[in-house]
Amino acid sequence: MDAYRHILVAIDFSPAADNVARRAFDIAACNNAQLSFIHVVEYLPFIMDNELITPPALDVEARLMSNARAQLAKLMERLDGPAATEQLVELGSTKVEILRIAAERAVDLIVIGSHGRHGWARMLGSTADAVLHGAACDVLAVRVPG
Amino acid sequence: MDAYRHILVAIDFSPAADNVARRAFDIAACNNAQLSFIHVVEYLPFIMDNELITPPALDVEARLMSNARAQLAKLMERLDGPAATEQLVELGSTKVEILRIAAERAVDLIVIGSHGRHGWARMLGSTADAVLHGAACDVLAVRVPG
Repeated sequence: MDAYRHILVAIDFSPAADNVARRAFDIAACNNAQLSFIHVVEYLPFIMDNELITPPALDVEARLMSNARAQLAKLMERLDGPAATEQLVELGSTKVEILRIAAERAVDLIVIGSHGRHGWARMLGSTADAVLHGAACDVLAVRVPG
Repeated sequence: MDAYRHILVAIDFSPAADNVARRAFDIAACNNAQLSFIHVVEYLPFIMDNELITPPALDVEARLMSNARAQLAKLMERLDGPAATEQLVELGSTKVEILRIAAERAVDLIVIGSHGRHGWARMLGSTADAVLHGAACDVLAVRVPG
């Protein structure tokens, strides 16, 4: 069996992100694999009567992206993972961006947190579900609390 | 991060089962984890007008179970995995049996093959989906050819 060569880790900034990241570090170490971390900023400006509500001057997108980059860098520093870990912040749909980057980087494993789902959450599905559906590679769903 | 201690590997007897099994062997070796393999015989006798159609004398269930046990033993021998690997053959719904054994054995990772899904297959969902929904532990979906 070929070892995993490139692992993409999808991360939010919940407390459970630590577990997802640490699991990915372990698997990367075992496989001597390259690591890319991705956080997706799911920002969609409200649109009403075909007009964007957000005042362009605020430049909300740029601020959200910049905040996310800082948070991701801080998380990586705190968890003390491999120095060569790539840090990506993308804007858009979490599922779409994870799958896009996975395809672009030709990763062979995606690691993602998976919440237990009941009621509404189950009806709506989850990012882990959507990634499992769409990925051309292996997917490790790390169970995280509710 | 705690290493995985007990890994449950759900296996059919398709050609892709080799990849699922080998991936599980790798992860078990990395984590020094115990391995249990499970194959579920999804046999449901036809029922018509509240009568079982299958003649009881044939004892189809027992034969299917015995065949599956032999196939699983052969697969394990051919792949030359760890000698201590537990081999389980259960009868019933694949999803239900995987989740039942996972809970009973308190496994911390389920490894399962996942087919790409399009059209009908996607509408119907898959065992990997169902296991991801129901599992209390991590799930590694190993992508196998459609």
